[in-house]
Amino acid sequence: MKDFIINSPLDMHLHLRDDDILKLVAPLTSKYFSGALIMPNLLPPITTKEALFAYKQRIIESCNHDNFEPLVTILFQVDYTYEFLKNIKDEIIAVKLYPFGVTTNSETGVSSMEITVLRPTLESMSKLGIPLCVHGETKGFVMDREKEFLPIYESLAINFPDLKIIMEHISTKESIELLKKYNNLYATITVHHLLLTLDDVTGGMLNPHTFCKPIVKRPDDRQALLELALSAHPKVMFGSDSAPHHRKTKECHDGAAGVFTAPIALQLLTQLFEEHGKLDNLNAFISLNAQKIYNIKPKSKVINLVKKDFIIPNSYIYKNEEVVPMFNGKKISWSIEKINNG
Amino acid sequence: MKDFIINSPLDMHLHLRDDDILKLVAPLTSKYFSGALIMPNLLPPITTKEALFAYKQRIIESCNHDNFEPLVTILFQVDYTYEFLKNIKDEIIAVKLYPFGVTTNSETGVSSMEITVLRPTLESMSKLGIPLCVHGETKGFVMDREKEFLPIYESLAINFPDLKIIMEHISTKESIELLKKYNNLYATITVHHLLLTLDDVTGGMLNPHTFCKPIVKRPDDRQALLELALSAHPKVMFGSDSAPHHRKTKECHDGAAGVFTAPIALQLLTQLFEEHGKLDNLNAFISLNAQKIYNIKPKSKVINLVKKDFIIPNSYIYKNEEVVPMFNGKKISWSIEKINNG
Repeated sequence: MKDFIINSPLDMHLHLRDDDILKLVAPLTSKYFSGALIMPNLLPPITTKEALFAYKQRIIESCNHDNFEPLVTILFQVDYTYEFLKNIKDEIIAVKLYPFGVTTNSETGVSSMEITVLRPTLESMSKLGIPLCVHGETKGFVMDREKEFLPIYESLAINFPDLKIIMEHISTKESIELLKKYNNLYATITVHHLLLTLDDVTGGMLNPHTFCKPIVKRPDDRQALLELALSAHPKVMFGSDSAPHHRKTKECHDGAAGVFTAPIALQLLTQLFEEHGKLDNLNAFISLNAQKIYNIKPKSKVINLVKKDFIIPNSYIYKNEEVVPMFNGKKISWSIEKINNG
Repeated sequence: MKDFIINSPLDMHLHLRDDDILKLVAPLTSKYFSGALIMPNLLPPITTKEALFAYKQRIIESCNHDNFEPLVTILFQVDYTYEFLKNIKDEIIAVKLYPFGVTTNSETGVSSMEITVLRPTLESMSKLGIPLCVHGETKGFVMDREKEFLPIYESLAINFPDLKIIMEHISTKESIELLKKYNNLYATITVHHLLLTLDDVTGGMLNPHTFCKPIVKRPDDRQALLELALSAHPKVMFGSDSAPHHRKTKECHDGAAGVFTAPIALQLLTQLFEEHGKLDNLNAFISLNAQKIYNIKPKSKVINLVKKDFIIPNSYIYKNEEVVPMFNGKKISWSIEKINNG
């Protein structure tokens, strides 16, 4: 049977939430990944060392003693001091910036993207070598939000040439052009933006489980992202943006944004890279590029996949929480056969 | 208090469905409208005189003896004979064409839009003066489907110059350009395509009650449609495309397409035309244009509206059916005060 090995996979953009939903989803990442960059957009968000340590501890306690490292972050604030950032530097992998109001819990995001407003924090980060992760969307028309944000990315890249800026979950071909233009721009790409277009949300029946921000875009956008990922371009990393919500908050009148892919991402990516004859590039996309970009050494974990059908569960349940994964009930042609830790 | 009168409003594109849902929604149109053009896309669809008569009877029985005329249609079939169409001509207002697979129950639609395939039926309709209503979408990318269909509209307009062709529920600025180019092209516009963009479906939380086919498009499309409707262009008519589905089939994993607006359309249109200082054009958009295009004389019905807040119900219920209207729970600034029949 055809098989494939992924070494120390890293998910460089992950939402784990808190409480029971954390207990449900954390083991579904820690089992399959060596490490994951954890988003700080709780309510209230992670902005202090105390909150960071406590959250990291809650994550570790939810991870079933798996050989897994949560790479934690704090939420960008305009009033972080140099001393605060210097003091917390070794505890975080990055600072995450949300513009106000663009996604789940982003009511705690920054209300102005003016460079003058952002400059003090960004200069400190730049000096200290702390990378900046950005959810790059305006509040414009849903299909244009990322494109409209590109001048802001460009301005950040020019104004802070020593700052590593990660364009999170890029979704358009225009973002790829900008990414290639500036040395200090990097990007994560989700598995759903490689597989879906707006057709998969609103083209047939309405599917709340493919609804996310940034919304999946046009076929030519998907194609451009796919080519970039398949080539394992050294500036791109896998980041699932796996974002669990309770089934009832998805299948309802006002459905929450977020696609849950953590436990199926490795299988889907293996299937996708194999289909395009690019399995040789998968370890770079899913681990090696991130190691170089973030200068990290992940815990050792060897994932053996085999070409054998795997039916995606209809949902994952813990206590009162129920999370529906993308493609629930559908078949993938690759399964995880064995996992070796350490 | 500011008031406004609508005379004999007509809804030139309406889905009434069947059984209990028909009993729920038919009175919500017959109360407020003089007449409505009823879509034939039941399962099985209306394609015979017997089915047509029986469905019309079921509609009338559901209408609470309101002074209302259901303007019934049959589903386009490539094998209708001239004799069949001649025989049914006086019983129908139009023939409705669905390409295969583009919307609810369109699995009974035509599988080829080749002129040679459609010609026999269309030539008979042309000779007999029966208008053709078309759901003009391809199966392409959801935002492009209507635009991709325009060459087919153009080919129909050129090949059948004596056929009245109604472009149903147009949703793009490109459709407006084509509409103006050919004398035998006409169009209906819904109230939701005048008010919404894709932002109202997927821009904030996911809203299944604004999800429809054709999908609501970009802001510039909405603006162009709005200008056309506000000008009461003589080739456009109001057609709600009000399309009820049970709440549970909307707020779920695979949500059905269709926006329910029948009982709120007159109030919303009055508010919209007043906001733009175009109330003088509303009777043309909502009745007079359709009377001229279809050469019909509607039953007399006088709707008195007053500028008074109206809270849209959260849902409409009959037996086990529950239908949620667009903007449920929201406030409109116009109410229906009095209705005079006859």
